[in-house]
Formats: sequence, structure tokens, C-alpha cells
Amino acid sequence: MFSDINLNKSKPIYIQIHNYIKEMIEKGMLPSRSKLPSTRELSKILNVSRNSIMKAYETLEDNELVYTLKGKGTFVSDIKVTLKDKWDINWSNKINDYAKLAEELDIIKNEVQYKKGMISFKSISPDESLFEVEEFKRAFLNRISIEGEKILNYGYAQGYKRLIDYLMEYMKSKGVNINNKDILITNGFTEGFDIVLSSLTQKGDTIICENPTHNTALKIMKLKGLNILGIDVEHDGLSIKKLKSTLQQNNIKIGYLVPSYHNPTGIVTSSEKRGEIYNIFKEHNVPIIEDGFNEELLHLGSHIAPMAAFCGEGNSIIYIGSFSKILFPGMRIGWILADKGLISILESVKRSRNIHTSFLDQALLYEYMKSGNFEKYLKKTRRFYKEKYELAVQLVAKYIPCEFIMGDGGLHIFTKLKGIDSRELLKHCYKKGVIFTPGDIFYTDGSGKDTLRLGFSRVSMEDMKKGFKIIGETIRYIKTSYY
Amino acid sequence: MFSDINLNKSKPIYIQIHNYIKEMIEKGMLPSRSKLPSTRELSKILNVSRNSIMKAYETLEDNELVYTLKGKGTFVSDIKVTLKDKWDINWSNKINDYAKLAEELDIIKNEVQYKKGMISFKSISPDESLFEVEEFKRAFLNRISIEGEKILNYGYAQGYKRLIDYLMEYMKSKGVNINNKDILITNGFTEGFDIVLSSLTQKGDTIICENPTHNTALKIMKLKGLNILGIDVEHDGLSIKKLKSTLQQNNIKIGYLVPSYHNPTGIVTSSEKRGEIYNIFKEHNVPIIEDGFNEELLHLGSHIAPMAAFCGEGNSIIYIGSFSKILFPGMRIGWILADKGLISILESVKRSRNIHTSFLDQALLYEYMKSGNFEKYLKKTRRFYKEKYELAVQLVAKYIPCEFIMGDGGLHIFTKLKGIDSRELLKHCYKKGVIFTPGDIFYTDGSGKDTLRLGFSRVSMEDMKKGFKIIGETIRYIKTSYY
Repeated sequence: MFSDINLNKSKPIYIQIHNYIKEMIEKGMLPSRSKLPSTRELSKILNVSRNSIMKAYETLEDNELVYTLKGKGTFVSDIKVTLKDKWDINWSNKINDYAKLAEELDIIKNEVQYKKGMISFKSISPDESLFEVEEFKRAFLNRISIEGEKILNYGYAQGYKRLIDYLMEYMKSKGVNINNKDILITNGFTEGFDIVLSSLTQKGDTIICENPTHNTALKIMKLKGLNILGIDVEHDGLSIKKLKSTLQQNNIKIGYLVPSYHNPTGIVTSSEKRGEIYNIFKEHNVPIIEDGFNEELLHLGSHIAPMAAFCGEGNSIIYIGSFSKILFPGMRIGWILADKGLISILESVKRSRNIHTSFLDQALLYEYMKSGNFEKYLKKTRRFYKEKYELAVQLVAKYIPCEFIMGDGGLHIFTKLKGIDSRELLKHCYKKGVIFTPGDIFYTDGSGKDTLRLGFSRVSMEDMKKGFKIIGETIRYIKTSYY
Repeated sequence: MFSDINLNKSKPIYIQIHNYIKEMIEKGMLPSRSKLPSTRELSKILNVSRNSIMKAYETLEDNELVYTLKGKGTFVSDIKVTLKDKWDINWSNKINDYAKLAEELDIIKNEVQYKKGMISFKSISPDESLFEVEEFKRAFLNRISIEGEKILNYGYAQGYKRLIDYLMEYMKSKGVNINNKDILITNGFTEGFDIVLSSLTQKGDTIICENPTHNTALKIMKLKGLNILGIDVEHDGLSIKKLKSTLQQNNIKIGYLVPSYHNPTGIVTSSEKRGEIYNIFKEHNVPIIEDGFNEELLHLGSHIAPMAAFCGEGNSIIYIGSFSKILFPGMRIGWILADKGLISILESVKRSRNIHTSFLDQALLYEYMKSGNFEKYLKKTRRFYKEKYELAVQLVAKYIPCEFIMGDGGLHIFTKLKGIDSRELLKHCYKKGVIFTPGDIFYTDGSGKDTLRLGFSRVSMEDMKKGFKIIGETIRYIKTSYY
């Protein structure tokens, strides 16, 4: 920078240097509080006497452009740099349709805001008081001492190998045949699903899914410009009849299913149905994206095999897993298990998006899980959430008149009211300090206006009682006011 | 699952239960080594005598379908489930053009592979032996004890607030006016750039950038279907003349510049030129994406203000920063500093992609930086890389005949050979155990075939001497062989 000063015989050297630095400061090229080179350094760079530099600096200080800290150096003062003709861009004119839609569909911005003191049934995040931070700390200290520098430097797009190997074994233990399959680590389910759709679909393709289904998945499908066909959900899985007819009557690119602890209904598709569904998709040669969403939460002893187990050696199911619903969602780790060749392509897509998921986080998750902490933690959380689930079911039965209640466990229940618009209900409940998620955001076709999802993972049993009671009272109030 | 058994009077209960479980196992719905419910549990679920269950389990064990571990329970045996009619999808037929292109442009897959023992000048990753793992550990223990559970649970799309505030102050100290601006935390520069282009451009838009420029940025521009116009790079920044004419003759959507430690040339655009460039873009009302790429590496005492400082209160520059080039790239943390309204939209886009960047990582980076570690670490790394940079320059002068060498410091130098194709050179050097990055991947227009980037951040001084010598010898060999 200073190397482009042109010193000549027109004025004293120190004045030229002073003027140059003054101009740099005023143009904003030497920011406030930045350190100037030492007098010795600059004298060397410019090949002039140190005295000239010192005089220049003194003059700058007299003009209050710089200040000196003894033993530290000379620094640029806090000067307001007024640049004439401010150049402003009207960014709202520059946003494209994709970004506009991302904002429209952003429920964090467009739904009721939580206020301190409210009872909120919106969240299905895990209860962090269950997190075993001491165990996690131990995992960190172990891993960091073994390979601290390595995991803090660049890693590989596919993921941290030990975690990949661990997850392959984990999926194998769930009955999935892992021959010719591989795993890509992603930033949670959300990124996994976004990568898969980005790589396999085009605008205008048709996707089939449960109705209702996971709202974030719906958002991503819409952002990709897909045509979404929803299949009604029954108490034990989607409607086989509707699935058959929809697949027959349409040209479907791919399917998206959430067989365990479905969001928002909380139901678990029976193993019988999983087999039927698999065979119907197979008949039409339509591959399936399975949202793993934690069979781990099953309250009974056995796991139900994921649909990915039904492939056997076949490769027609893309399984996206994540432990976010119960374990450390803040770290954003998920995985895609699929055909080896497909994973290789998705790895390149991942690399182009953000190179790789945090290696520190992957290594910590691996260390934490391999120490057997996960099983212990699971037992604890299952008990904890099972209690709340059972209470939720009781409370609905007691306070909330509804057409049905769905949910086999997990972190939330889903209910359909009798002839009441849930957003109307939400408005009134909001005034009484209770909020929940209206169910229409989960529907593919604008229906479900009388449904709501009640998440209880982060609500105390006491607040659950209070909150459900208020919802029930509000329903009665609405009924007597309007009907 | 077991709740859908239909027990009747046709056969003994224990046989019906046995058959049901056997079928589940054979269908793959009860995976190998999964635990069956305890006999007490299942007897309760099915409302039959515990004896019946025990007899069913014994029969299953006799048939080797399950095994019992005393005190632990009954588990499904390792049985190969043969599912008839394997269903395979030909995934290569299903990949769309975007994913195909991502793989074509993936240099990790398409460039020479490193073999153990080689001297590689490909990498510009930081040298991890400089990482202060003990300090990082301390940062972890501090932060975890303050808010361990919080940072491990879901966070916010915009980012971890303390880190955002810290970075706002950091940018302010570089001379950037932060009024009406905000920050979005991303997974490194790569995600930041991908999000910005995804939100502001459409296929067919024209983008202007330096030529050569950062190859990952080029990849992302191509993946977005942009028309790329490159402006020649001179020793102190891009060609003002070419910039003016290109902006005049074309309808440009946006510009992408790397003013400090440009990748691949390593040059630092002089502050004079930064001002000129800013004014030219302003004249044509074309906004600029500035790739921060670490002014911190500047070997002299002062920072050069980023171009974002030239806006003053204006909002026409989108600054994407990252500490990856020198600090913890494995954590994948970058940031976009831009107009407040624009950041709000980009936040929704970020949320739709992967909800948020790891809160654990953001909190750790914040804790590490606020303890003043960063300044100390910077001093150390500057000295370290400066030594290597100076050696690299000497070695090129000594061994490698070239048209020019570019680079003002940083982690690599860039050189143009005299009439030699650098991929040809690479082929020969590879046989002698030396590899580097051919420069053509950085060019927008297929030129640069005689250029190469030599990264030295992770090469010992001894290997630098060896490697440069071999490159020089190989050039002589090629010349004598062919000319």
C-alpha cells in the first residue's frame, strides 16, 4: 500500500508522507484504530530517513488524524469518513423468485411469535435438560487429544470416516442391507433432502408424499417447483387405496415418506403396511426417499425395520437419517444412505454447496456415540417422552373435543377439531398465553384447517395441564360465541 | 407392531405367535440382533399368558430364529433375509444436469490424486501444526459450562448472536460502516456465495469477475448457469481499462471480486485501485460481492480497508468473510455482511437449506476469538507464512523460468511459464513425485494453460526446495525434449 507513494522534490518529504496518509484516512482506506507501520518499518519501505517519518506522524497527530500509544505504536483516529454520493441498491428489486418464496414459506417469520411466559406447544425440539453435557465434554476431550488439529482443518465432502463407518453399522443393525450402498454426511435432514431433490428433480416434476407431512419438506418441494400429490394418512400409515390410484393415474418422479413418528401426526406405519407400500412403489418403479426421523423413539423394545430394509440388496430407497429429534440438533448432522454411485454424485453436489459438514461436530458425535452413551441416553429420553405422551393423550381426552387424535409416541400429537378453524382457535388462545402449530402448514392441498399439532417435548407436565385446559376452554368459548 | 397380531382359536396361541414373529423376521421387519419384547411385556400387550410367550420364544430359539442372552433378553438371529425380485434403480439415468455438472466440475475427483510421499503444492489449507488446540480446548470448556445445553439444541438461522455482534465490531474496525447492515452466518465462504447467487441471479444473467479467479466461485457461477465475463488481473488488481469497457458493453447483474490475497494470484489490490474499481461499478450501478479472503494475512502492520468500507453508509457491496484460510476451516464458518433487508431474505434462504450453521461451532469460535487468541495466533501465522512466501519467491527465481510470478504474501504464488503447458508439466512432475494445481481451472475463458498455482502452506521448507528444484529440472527436460 505505502509502496505506491510517489515522493518528489516539490515539497518536504514529511509533508508528502503526511498528505498521503491523510488522504488514505479520509478515503476510508486506513480504517479507524488500524495501526500504521512503525517509523522504522516505513522508513525502510520508502527508503527515507526515519526522522521524516517521525515528523510526518507528529504532524498527523497534531491534526488529530492519528494517536500514539506508548510502546504500542501509532493508530488512525476514529474519524467519520464522509463519502459523497452514497450508493444504495434497492435490494428488494434484485431478489429472485426463489428467495422470495423462501421468505414467504418461512414459518419462523410468518407464524405467531412466542412471548416470554407463554405456554407454547409449537416446538418439537428435544428437551435440552436431558442432554448429557458431561458425557459430551468427555467425548470432546478424548477426540481433541487424539486428533485435534486434524478435525479442525479441512475434511472431506463425504464426511468423517469413523462416523460414516459407525452409521453404516448402525443402519445394518436396523436390518438395512449395506452392500453397494454408501453414506453422505449432511447438515441435518434439511440439507439431505435439499441435496437429493436438487440432484434428482426438475421444476414441474411430480412428487408423492403423505398428507399431511413434514412442513419443511413441503417447503423444499415447493422451492424446487415440484407438483405435490398428497396421500391421506390413516391411523397406521397412508391410504393404500389412494396410493395405488395416484401412482396409476400420474407420472410420479419420486416419493417422500416418513414411516416412523411421522411429522405432524406422530404415527408409526405398521410393518405390514410398510411392506405393502414398498411393493406398490416397486410396481410403478418410483423410488422412495425415506425420512428416518427416529425409530429410536419407539417405546417398545423392538425396532421396526425402516423401509430401506425392504430393498434387500436393491437400491431403490434413499434413506435420510438424523438424530436431531433427540440428540444435539445444534450441531446439524444428518446422513443420506443410498446406492453407492448415487452417493458419489451427491458428494460432489455437497462439495459445491459448502465443502463438507463440520468435521469437529462429526468427530464429537462419533466419539459420544461409540462410548455407548447413546443407548443410555435413549432409555432415559424414551421414558421421559413416553410419560409426556401419555399425559398428552389423557389431557386431550379430558379437555379437547376432537374428531381424532393421532400419535404413537414421540414428541407431539396431532388432532382434528370438530368444526373449528385452528387458526381462529390460535388467535383466541394467543390472548390467553397459549400457542400451538396450526395443522394447515402440513397439508399439500390447503386442507387441514381444523387440525393442529401439539408439541410437548419442551413443556413441563404442569404447563401441559394448564395449556390443554385453556385450549379446551377456548374451544368451548368459541362454540358458545358462534354456534 | 405386535399389536396387529390376530390371535384366534385355530391353532395353539404359542404357535400363532411363533409364526407371526417368524414371518416378521423373514420379511426383514425384525432386524438381526434386534431385541424382542420381554416375555412379560409381550404377554401384557397381547393379553395372553406369559407361558404362551415363553413357549413361542423357545420354539423360535429351537428353530434358530432367535437367541437368548441370560439377563439381557431374546434377540433376533443373524439371518440373511432373501427378498425376491430385487428392485434396482438406474440412478445415473435419474441424475439431473445440475448434479452432473457438479460432478464434472469437482476437481477433487477430476485432478491428479495425491499419493503418500509426494510433494504436493496443491493445497492452500492452513498448516494445522499452528492451530492452538489447547486454547481451543479452553474455549470449549468455558463455553460448554456456561451454556452447553443451549448451543447443542436448535439455534437460529441468522446465527449465534454473540458471534454476529463480534463480527459486526470486527468489520467496523476494518473501516466498514455497519449502520443498516447485518450479518448472516454461513457454512464457510462457499455456502455464502452459493446463497447469494441463488437469491439474486437467474440462469443466463451475466456476472463479472477477475480472470483468473477462485475456482470454487467459478464452479458455483457455472452451476447457476451464469454467463461469466472475466477481467484480466494485473500486478496490483484487475485492469481498469478492461473493467470499464466490459461494464459499458454488457448488461451485468453483479460483480465478484477478491481484493486481498486473490486466489489464485495471491495479489492484493492496491487501495488506489479499490477506490477506482468501486467508482466504476457505482457508475454502472452494478453491485459487488467482495470475497474477504483474509486481509488478516497482510504482512505489514496496517490493514487495507476492504472495498466494503468504500460504501460508507451505502449498501451496494455484499461482503463474504471467512477465517478458513488461517483458522479452523474444519468447522465451516463464514459470514455475509450486507444490507439489513437483504440479510433478512438470505436468512430465510439459509433456513430452507439447513436451518442454521452449527451453534456449537459458532459459540466455540466466538469464545476462542474473544479471549484475544486470534491476534496472538495471527502474529505467529503471519511470520510463519511470510517466511515461506519469501522462500517460494526465491526458489522460483532460482529454479523456475517464468513470464511472471504473482503473489504479495498469503499461502501460495501464481506463475506463468514460458511457452509450456502446465498440465504437460504436471504429468512429468507427477512421475517424479511432485504435484501442483494447473492454472487453467481458475480462468473464465479456457486460457491460462501455461499457468500454475503453487501452494506452500503445508509444505516444509525442505520439501519446497526439493519440489521447486524438481519442477525446474522438469521444465528443462521438457524444453530439451521438445524444442
